[in-house]
Amino acid sequence: MEPIKVGLLGFGTVGCGTYTVLRRNQEEIKRRAGRGIEIARIAVRDPAKARTALASVDAADAGSVEVTSDFNAVVDDPSIDIVAEMIGGTGIARELVLRAIANRKHVVTANKALLAVHGTEIFEAAHANGVMVAFEAAVAGGIPIIKALREGLTANRIEYIAGIINGTTNYILSEMRDRGLDFATALKAAQALGYAEADPTFDIEGVDAAHKATIMSAIAFGVPVQFDKAYVEGISRLAAIDIRYAEELGYRIKLLGIARRTAKGIELRVHPTLIPAKRLLANVEGAMNAVVVHGDAVGTTLYYGKGAGAEPTASAVVADLVDVTRLHTADPEHRVPHLAFQRDRLSDTPILPIDEVTSGYYLRLRVADVTGVLADITRILAAAGISIDALLQKESEQVDDHGKGETDIILITHETVEKNVNAAISGIEALRTVVSKVTKLRMEALN
Amino acid sequence: MEPIKVGLLGFGTVGCGTYTVLRRNQEEIKRRAGRGIEIARIAVRDPAKARTALASVDAADAGSVEVTSDFNAVVDDPSIDIVAEMIGGTGIARELVLRAIANRKHVVTANKALLAVHGTEIFEAAHANGVMVAFEAAVAGGIPIIKALREGLTANRIEYIAGIINGTTNYILSEMRDRGLDFATALKAAQALGYAEADPTFDIEGVDAAHKATIMSAIAFGVPVQFDKAYVEGISRLAAIDIRYAEELGYRIKLLGIARRTAKGIELRVHPTLIPAKRLLANVEGAMNAVVVHGDAVGTTLYYGKGAGAEPTASAVVADLVDVTRLHTADPEHRVPHLAFQRDRLSDTPILPIDEVTSGYYLRLRVADVTGVLADITRILAAAGISIDALLQKESEQVDDHGKGETDIILITHETVEKNVNAAISGIEALRTVVSKVTKLRMEALN
Repeated sequence: MEPIKVGLLGFGTVGCGTYTVLRRNQEEIKRRAGRGIEIARIAVRDPAKARTALASVDAADAGSVEVTSDFNAVVDDPSIDIVAEMIGGTGIARELVLRAIANRKHVVTANKALLAVHGTEIFEAAHANGVMVAFEAAVAGGIPIIKALREGLTANRIEYIAGIINGTTNYILSEMRDRGLDFATALKAAQALGYAEADPTFDIEGVDAAHKATIMSAIAFGVPVQFDKAYVEGISRLAAIDIRYAEELGYRIKLLGIARRTAKGIELRVHPTLIPAKRLLANVEGAMNAVVVHGDAVGTTLYYGKGAGAEPTASAVVADLVDVTRLHTADPEHRVPHLAFQRDRLSDTPILPIDEVTSGYYLRLRVADVTGVLADITRILAAAGISIDALLQKESEQVDDHGKGETDIILITHETVEKNVNAAISGIEALRTVVSKVTKLRMEALN
Repeated sequence: MEPIKVGLLGFGTVGCGTYTVLRRNQEEIKRRAGRGIEIARIAVRDPAKARTALASVDAADAGSVEVTSDFNAVVDDPSIDIVAEMIGGTGIARELVLRAIANRKHVVTANKALLAVHGTEIFEAAHANGVMVAFEAAVAGGIPIIKALREGLTANRIEYIAGIINGTTNYILSEMRDRGLDFATALKAAQALGYAEADPTFDIEGVDAAHKATIMSAIAFGVPVQFDKAYVEGISRLAAIDIRYAEELGYRIKLLGIARRTAKGIELRVHPTLIPAKRLLANVEGAMNAVVVHGDAVGTTLYYGKGAGAEPTASAVVADLVDVTRLHTADPEHRVPHLAFQRDRLSDTPILPIDEVTSGYYLRLRVADVTGVLADITRILAAAGISIDALLQKESEQVDDHGKGETDIILITHETVEKNVNAAISGIEALRTVVSKVTKLRMEALN
């Protein structure tokens, strides 16, 4: 049988990784897919550069790949069966993906931003044209987490997902903890090693993780992708001292993407999170990714691996190419739904605003070393219905010549609604004896 | 659309769990599958007992399920679309599965023994009749590891799989380490808690793990299932002292199922294994399961969850039912192959005998406390081409009135071929100064 023909849009790290893996493992992949998978055309801004890259991977084969700077020519090419979009972003990538779908081509993409923001439009177009849109590479790189959620755990009412789904921030947090660095120094080290980009905003501010959490929330709960409803908080304001205090209390701080089902609606949020140090997830270090999925039947499961990099991401892209090759002849009404649930059976369960989220909280504040300050604080918390799980009071430090002292107090609360905590924090900050703002971090037990 | 109709063979723990999960999550499952999934008939030795169990799950629905003691009646029923085999073993289960396939029914099974031993016959019959045989529940319970290997990692040349795939033995090993128990005491505790069966042979002697490793080896490497070629060693002869010495050296002992690709062939083996304590896999405790899969593109990935129990196993069974419901209309030649590779493209790569396996080794022996004994031992190892990675010599214990002492020596070797180690052990045991047999355990770095 003729190989299935793939047109590649973009030829950066992931595009080149995809070509590399397809060439190196072509025999093994063909034995699995039942048919060869061939990159027939590549559209890229700088064809000369792409040709050099191709030749460096497989000089003998490179000549058979046509390289063009005309993206539409690939998307419109009647001989192309699958378009693999590797451009990224929500601009030209969206236009080309929709055009490929209109041309009745299957699409494989690693573009989390595109799907988190325009997923509904794209999946509707795919349905109208009877084609598949596969996107395993969009979340957690080489870890087959989309497949696990969409197909492996279909028996379950999913209760929550909590994932380390951004390698850059996990690397920075690991360095801050291991080497006692502050955020800015750890970021520079990550940039020097290529773990963080020159403009790291999307990673460190949690946007990338929120794109991925948004996609997972749709698959887990059968709701549309709603990136605009996600709460997004990164690690750039995280202080080294909170990592140390958390450690003393038996916790690690990780940037988690969380999607949780509650009676009131769905929580969808990304923020630095204290988790018990003994959890497997707490021990995922460096640039590695891991996702915990809790289902009512299966209980807690965890999926771990490399979340980025040329070949780990290519592993997911090629798995999608194999899936499409294996299943493209199936009746379009009898395929695995893009977002796990049948498109006409989505739920309108609301995504909760962050004020309505339930969590445990870590609160750090600095107080004047005066009798009664702790009583004032605990009274305010009790009045807001917040109970205290643990308290850490550091030794007093003398701050002026009159012998007056100041001290850090760290409080761990039981689970409560965020708006109650915020109200209590306002009350605490108004106390004359409290000399700092209150630092608030959320906690997850991950039971 | 009419629900798809399932006939259940057997109604023990997993069968009842499957019914429970299907009833509880029926709406959510239907939204995913696009069609209801209904257990229409159950065949079981004791129908009265099954009816009681059904009624205790869902009194309102239980009456709509027909319960019979005639297994053939279910397998031959033209209204049944999928037969779910929950009997276990390789006797009547094999006959009923083959009969269901001959009747062109899809089959879902949790029966690892059946597939590890008779898989080739069963998958051939399924191909001849154009039906699917799904078996996610056969390996690692609720963890979707079959799907990950068969579909999620298809881009990769799989290098190795190493898994904690038997919860009973992992529970016993965790108790031996945590509480310093010997094997017999830990086994009794596991039996009292229901983690081990009255006759625990299949679990503790590694047979259950070997069934699962055999199935994974076929999917990973594209070879037929060959349980008879697996090397199987359980934990019943494991001494508590080796767990302690391993700990001192920075290792944990786990019963691993290992399938590894080497230049000479495939290693397929189950045995107690030392792994570095800092690996995530080393920290999988109690009855939990986890599988590490290393692919050339994706690197190291890990999958963790409950490997047994009514609902975790049912999670996998129902996921298979959803898969069949979603995809049963597809052209049989364009489905996902049962064992990941196209049936006509399997490889005849040999499974290596244990003598040819490569591993690091932990050797413990007791020696008379005499000058030169260590020199003799290291000379024998060097002559066999075995280099030493670490050595632990315990303090001498006086054993008789003449002041003679004996001491334990623990050696960790670099990787070498097993037959060389066995030859060296024979030489060491022949030394007059060596007063015990040599205890040998294998090690895996899991890099």
